[in-house]
Amino acid sequence: MYAQRVLSGMRPTGSLHLGHYHGVLKNWLRLQNEYPCLFFVADWHALTTQYDDPQGIVSSSWDMVIDWLAAGVDPARATLFIQSQVPEHAELHLLLSMMAPLGWLERVPTYKDQQEKLENKDLSTYGFLGYPLLQSADILIYRADKVPVGEDQVPHIEFSREIARRFNHLYGRKGTGKMILVEPGALLTEASRMPGLDGQKMSKSYGNTITLREDEASVTHKLRRMPTDPARVRRSDPGDPGRCPVWQLHQVYTDESCQAWVQQGCRSAGIGCLECKQPVIDAILSEQAPMRERAQPYLDDASLVREIINEGNKKARHLARETMRDVRAAMGLDYG
Amino acid sequence: MYAQRVLSGMRPTGSLHLGHYHGVLKNWLRLQNEYPCLFFVADWHALTTQYDDPQGIVSSSWDMVIDWLAAGVDPARATLFIQSQVPEHAELHLLLSMMAPLGWLERVPTYKDQQEKLENKDLSTYGFLGYPLLQSADILIYRADKVPVGEDQVPHIEFSREIARRFNHLYGRKGTGKMILVEPGALLTEASRMPGLDGQKMSKSYGNTITLREDEASVTHKLRRMPTDPARVRRSDPGDPGRCPVWQLHQVYTDESCQAWVQQGCRSAGIGCLECKQPVIDAILSEQAPMRERAQPYLDDASLVREIINEGNKKARHLARETMRDVRAAMGLDYG
Repeated sequence: MYAQRVLSGMRPTGSLHLGHYHGVLKNWLRLQNEYPCLFFVADWHALTTQYDDPQGIVSSSWDMVIDWLAAGVDPARATLFIQSQVPEHAELHLLLSMMAPLGWLERVPTYKDQQEKLENKDLSTYGFLGYPLLQSADILIYRADKVPVGEDQVPHIEFSREIARRFNHLYGRKGTGKMILVEPGALLTEASRMPGLDGQKMSKSYGNTITLREDEASVTHKLRRMPTDPARVRRSDPGDPGRCPVWQLHQVYTDESCQAWVQQGCRSAGIGCLECKQPVIDAILSEQAPMRERAQPYLDDASLVREIINEGNKKARHLARETMRDVRAAMGLDYG
Repeated sequence: MYAQRVLSGMRPTGSLHLGHYHGVLKNWLRLQNEYPCLFFVADWHALTTQYDDPQGIVSSSWDMVIDWLAAGVDPARATLFIQSQVPEHAELHLLLSMMAPLGWLERVPTYKDQQEKLENKDLSTYGFLGYPLLQSADILIYRADKVPVGEDQVPHIEFSREIARRFNHLYGRKGTGKMILVEPGALLTEASRMPGLDGQKMSKSYGNTITLREDEASVTHKLRRMPTDPARVRRSDPGDPGRCPVWQLHQVYTDESCQAWVQQGCRSAGIGCLECKQPVIDAILSEQAPMRERAQPYLDDASLVREIINEGNKKARHLARETMRDVRAAMGLDYG
């Protein structure tokens, strides 16, 4: 049996925001204490939707890794690496492509979804169609059995399982039942709907984000300007937290007694909106303070991040090469 | 400008036959005297149609390289290597896949053709669809500007040209017109229809071949048993060379005066069929003699072929890495 191993990747989208922190990174922090973890920058994946404008992927990657470290991802526990720096992923992707039924890829639900969602982009490329297969290669090359994903990504893990199964069936040693590739399992991550500054889900594309290490003045300014219940025009008008985006942030950031104070104060016009916002501002700033602090040495000396990544690339590559040795041998492509 | 460079590959199909010699290898022998040449074993390509039974690819590859050397391919002139041993092909294939329109691949004429031809195989795989793209990566990674192909493969070269053009358009430095990938040209090879033992085109699938280094007794036996003009039942019946498969071999192997002797002798029943066959037998045996001789040292000592291939892999990889450095830099994927 192979050891338990968690794999998770993120596309380099530039600076991360608090939605990433609450939705992904807090989960990583928990996982790195429980399992051997591999966290990677999915820079090749970024090309599937961004092939026409790839400049900036590298700097986004470095920024993102600093954000990971700022959030508390610990390179002494987890292996951090960059996908394109382990070119074995491409080789496994190619070998898997030979036995991957086209129909399986065409039926992955996100394929049509994404194409419709990003309809202003030309996504009718061979690489975009093959995106779940590249993801399978990413997972299978590390024999990762645990892949944290949200509900919507479960079909991708199921696809990877089927690819692994098909590979083992075609190339596993008959009779011995030897498993060459490990079927991964989804580690279902509870959906976190981190509210943005406008009450919609926090997302770069909505322009409603607070970045992980945003400076205090900017965070304070943004939150003070946040809209509240539109019916509460004057300080003396009572409000309804159910219609107020700030209330959503209270639910993430403040405790019961504070929330009771808000409910009572808002509905009775006992507190003003700025007053109501202050505990949220305080909570976000204190959440961010250690992140800014952890990031500082990496911002002061870029070589520190490079060293962490070089080290991670090396470790990941070692694992990937082990798998590729077995894969080539199983397929009879071993020139010894 | 980049240097002129020829690239040609063959799938490892096991022992080559005289059809390969007359159709491909004689052309390679000429090319290796005129250009820097790269000749490679397309073992990954073999997987596109043979993914369900890849065992044997390695031994077929070694046999084929010995056949190349036997035919006179000169490792001191040409670089001989194995595709899978230069994994950079897979990386370029992946990067190109991101910008390769699906429609271009679906429209490559050989795609539907081959699927119909090999309808007993399940070729509805992602890799089979991507086969011309892998071929493009093979060519473009060496900036090969000359690719010897038959008429039917011209669309593949055109596809590679279009991929190179699209890549340069997307990622070439604006204004400077810097060409990152070189558009390859087809070096049209005259179709050689080497006749087999039954008058059909010589082909393994027809079971009508003489292998390159087949032993003399077997060659003689096969040729003596070859069918002739079916109307010539008795020695005394006159024959028609136009209906005789042996005559086709005369056209490949014997000179005008011999051919005149055949025409006259056959039509007048002046010579018997075995008599007629003898000059062909002699010519084939003497064509094969130096091949058998050149092969012998490689058969005696397998490490000689390995050394040649190791050396070739190294040279090819050096060229491939140079291109990949430029490709990554052009795409902004350079982590320095």
